[in-house]
Amino acid sequence: MFIAVDAGGTSTRAVAVDRAGHVHGYGRAAGGNPTSAGIPAAVTAIGAAAGQTVAGLPPGDVEAVGIAMAGEKTDAFSTQLSECLGRLGLGRVVLQPDLLAMFHSGTHRLDGYGLISGTGSIAAQIRDGRLHRVVGGRGWLLGDAGSGFWIGHRVARAVVSALDGQGPPTTLTSLVLTALGIDDTGSGAVLPQVVSALYARRPVQLSEFAPLAFAALEDPVARAILDDAAAALAHLLATVHEPWLTGPVVVGGSVMIRGFLAGPPDLRDRLGLPDDVVPVDDGVVGSAVLALREAGVVVDEDVFERVRGGVARVTGPSA
Amino acid sequence: MFIAVDAGGTSTRAVAVDRAGHVHGYGRAAGGNPTSAGIPAAVTAIGAAAGQTVAGLPPGDVEAVGIAMAGEKTDAFSTQLSECLGRLGLGRVVLQPDLLAMFHSGTHRLDGYGLISGTGSIAAQIRDGRLHRVVGGRGWLLGDAGSGFWIGHRVARAVVSALDGQGPPTTLTSLVLTALGIDDTGSGAVLPQVVSALYARRPVQLSEFAPLAFAALEDPVARAILDDAAAALAHLLATVHEPWLTGPVVVGGSVMIRGFLAGPPDLRDRLGLPDDVVPVDDGVVGSAVLALREAGVVVDEDVFERVRGGVARVTGPSA
Repeated sequence: MFIAVDAGGTSTRAVAVDRAGHVHGYGRAAGGNPTSAGIPAAVTAIGAAAGQTVAGLPPGDVEAVGIAMAGEKTDAFSTQLSECLGRLGLGRVVLQPDLLAMFHSGTHRLDGYGLISGTGSIAAQIRDGRLHRVVGGRGWLLGDAGSGFWIGHRVARAVVSALDGQGPPTTLTSLVLTALGIDDTGSGAVLPQVVSALYARRPVQLSEFAPLAFAALEDPVARAILDDAAAALAHLLATVHEPWLTGPVVVGGSVMIRGFLAGPPDLRDRLGLPDDVVPVDDGVVGSAVLALREAGVVVDEDVFERVRGGVARVTGPSA
Repeated sequence: MFIAVDAGGTSTRAVAVDRAGHVHGYGRAAGGNPTSAGIPAAVTAIGAAAGQTVAGLPPGDVEAVGIAMAGEKTDAFSTQLSECLGRLGLGRVVLQPDLLAMFHSGTHRLDGYGLISGTGSIAAQIRDGRLHRVVGGRGWLLGDAGSGFWIGHRVARAVVSALDGQGPPTTLTSLVLTALGIDDTGSGAVLPQVVSALYARRPVQLSEFAPLAFAALEDPVARAILDDAAAALAHLLATVHEPWLTGPVVVGGSVMIRGFLAGPPDLRDRLGLPDDVVPVDDGVVGSAVLALREAGVVVDEDVFERVRGGVARVTGPSA
């Protein structure tokens, strides 16, 4: 038996899976990324989610725990995590990049491309089941073009500019004022309130405004922001693409899935994605695929579909 | 006698001026902006610069101290400042916006326009000697288009993008690496070093890269950033401009003076400035003009030129 964990910034999901790809248990806990949650909280969340998956199963059965996560894996984190999982009687720990797990949530194939737009944005070329080339990321200040932050930042600047009389009026203004809990009195007092409220938050929280742009698709200002974001994401994917390397394009992230892919066809077309693009909700399935492969299991289409079906069953349709 | 102070973020300059516009003394001290330096340090700097101007003059002669400064003027700051200047035997304090002092450093006229691009950017329409409409500012995250931060931020993103293979190569890369003290080994290790170094600084420090763009004018990436910045500043000025309100356009700020106005004519033309634009170094002259006007002195062209000449004489050619 293996435990596969997707340790994200807002939640941690885990499944128990056997060598044939059958899914036996499911667990869910708070955010398990040590960079955002801190090491102790992340270790606790991962331990809780992993522990839930094996409740009711015979003890000592777990061969390895595969964990998919973003960002730096420090020695302190690895050590504390191994201690925690060891106390639960679980096996050795294998850490994997979340981008790779996302890709393997969408396909059993070993070559292809991954593109994520969530709070940040990143793209990768996958070869032989490993990340071969990764571009993008680099955070809100220096990179992440086309991401939730990038869109939300432009939404905030467009609203400030509209209130200042520099930019055109936009329906985004009332949406942002509502989100900030500021009454639109129509007076000059609104702009300083908006500016103070936005500087009081962490810059990365501007990503919370990205859904407002998708909610205002008829507004020319919002639409221009999203057209630019789509072009930036298309460029990101084009940078890792090589004509001779064929394979599926797996896409993920809240902005990609609930924003662009749920949007109108003419916006979606700007992403330049193939017709058979594979959207994924998270990296749980891929984390299981990686754990099985790490143990020498050949994950063919049958095993992959068994894992995917099993995960869908235990997590429910809304996962 | 009046003391006129320009309390900037990096230095505080002061002059003593009489009702006829003759300049009698000069003082200089550390940054006097309470937002950036803190209230005690700002009060000390302003007191030191003001005190130097009246050294050797008969005591009790100072009618008022006019202080030009950016940002919020809190009650705590005003109270501590009045106490400090009172102990020095100086008169009552009158605070003025630095943008207004910049304008009055360039002209004795009461109507016109001001445009600043330094670390931030801001524009104003001046009517009857007062700020009538102000647009821009709002800081690095939400505004300041065409400013030093805005340019430096784009420089940093262009370098990260070039190192990542997303964007075109640019000579800005070697300039930024040198500024950060990172050896260009040509290996993949350079990009993470650049990213770490940049996130370790305060975001607003990216404005330090703005001069690199002006140093790389032949580079298409740098030139495109500066063309966009010039267009943003032209838009800022156009927003406050009204055809029927004629008057001089006074410009200031390090990016404007040492960047755009010192640049090639085809870049400078993109600012859309009139031929008789008035560049100013700082707000010292205007602070004196405002102090005299506040005391009922009519500052005509003669008085203005006497103040300007006197300030130039005491501060020296490089002020």
